[in-house]
Amino acid sequence: MRTNNGVLAVVSGPSGAGKGTVVSALINSCGSCFLSVSATTRPPREGEIPGKHYNFVSRDEFEDMIKKGELLEYAEYAGNYYGTPRRDIDLLLSEGKDVILEIDMQGGTMVREKRADAVLIFLTPPLIGDIEKRLRGRNTESEDSIKKRLETARRELSGAGSYDYIVINDSVDMAVEDIRCILRAERCSASRNPLAL
Amino acid sequence: MRTNNGVLAVVSGPSGAGKGTVVSALINSCGSCFLSVSATTRPPREGEIPGKHYNFVSRDEFEDMIKKGELLEYAEYAGNYYGTPRRDIDLLLSEGKDVILEIDMQGGTMVREKRADAVLIFLTPPLIGDIEKRLRGRNTESEDSIKKRLETARRELSGAGSYDYIVINDSVDMAVEDIRCILRAERCSASRNPLAL
Repeated sequence: MRTNNGVLAVVSGPSGAGKGTVVSALINSCGSCFLSVSATTRPPREGEIPGKHYNFVSRDEFEDMIKKGELLEYAEYAGNYYGTPRRDIDLLLSEGKDVILEIDMQGGTMVREKRADAVLIFLTPPLIGDIEKRLRGRNTESEDSIKKRLETARRELSGAGSYDYIVINDSVDMAVEDIRCILRAERCSASRNPLAL
Repeated sequence: MRTNNGVLAVVSGPSGAGKGTVVSALINSCGSCFLSVSATTRPPREGEIPGKHYNFVSRDEFEDMIKKGELLEYAEYAGNYYGTPRRDIDLLLSEGKDVILEIDMQGGTMVREKRADAVLIFLTPPLIGDIEKRLRGRNTESEDSIKKRLETARRELSGAGSYDYIVINDSVDMAVEDIRCILRAERCSASRNPLAL
């Protein structure tokens, strides 16, 4: 391991992939991993803790952050803004901590554009990864039905083309260990450790 | 983790990097890692076990392997051939085992040319990795002396430009864990797991 800077990692995936469970388990088990707290204009829900689940800000504050270029990525869903503030991330990375962004594929692509060193991890449920093998293996579905199912899976996966790693969540422990290893391996990558002395 | 195929990894590095120690510790601690046994025309030394340390073959046999394209890489040192037979490696990889080649940088470059999926790991002693920081940190050397020392280090490292990962051997356990994580992360890499269903 060489670089002292942490790794910025995006974890995305289709619904049902278990992102929340895997990312929580990773944060709890990996002392050097931190979850980025998103900013949002949506009001807090019951039980949500400001600064832990989200940083809750006004629409004016959010649009001010956009104008000042303070967000690494943002999007608007159902009339509310959600975004990733840049400052906290850079501070954590410079302290040698890995920062995990649990955001959608569109956000991941925005992060990649602004930060070429970001690592994009696509978490997928085992059923999608194995779907063709399973469908063909059980020999009960018509070729037409297999094709339709594969088309659906393909659509779900089509956003993952720019992702660096595919982690299959067939076991939370194994998926967490995969991501932990990806972060550790990335710290050793030659591109992060220019040998020019 | 998705692909069922093992990863072919080359470990190279300057003398004094501790390649032998790290690779032995890796093989002993990682059940899915196997060391490729090189073929050589040099006679066995005291204590060397055929099939474990080397496959000892005649010059005619070796040249026959070259002609038949059975070697992934080979070189001649001091009148003796050394090379990596392709067949055993492909068998181990298809069984899902990771195969480690402990060869020099020239051999590593040959492997990369023939196998784009090979992972090239450069193991370096900590003194080289930290040399500039250490030299400048202690503030006792002239700029000229620092430049000379860096020049030497640069020469030693210059062959590593095509390597994928840099692992610093400041602790055998940490270096082994780095390589174990690199192998596990590589199995998750998108390039080994095309999402086309």
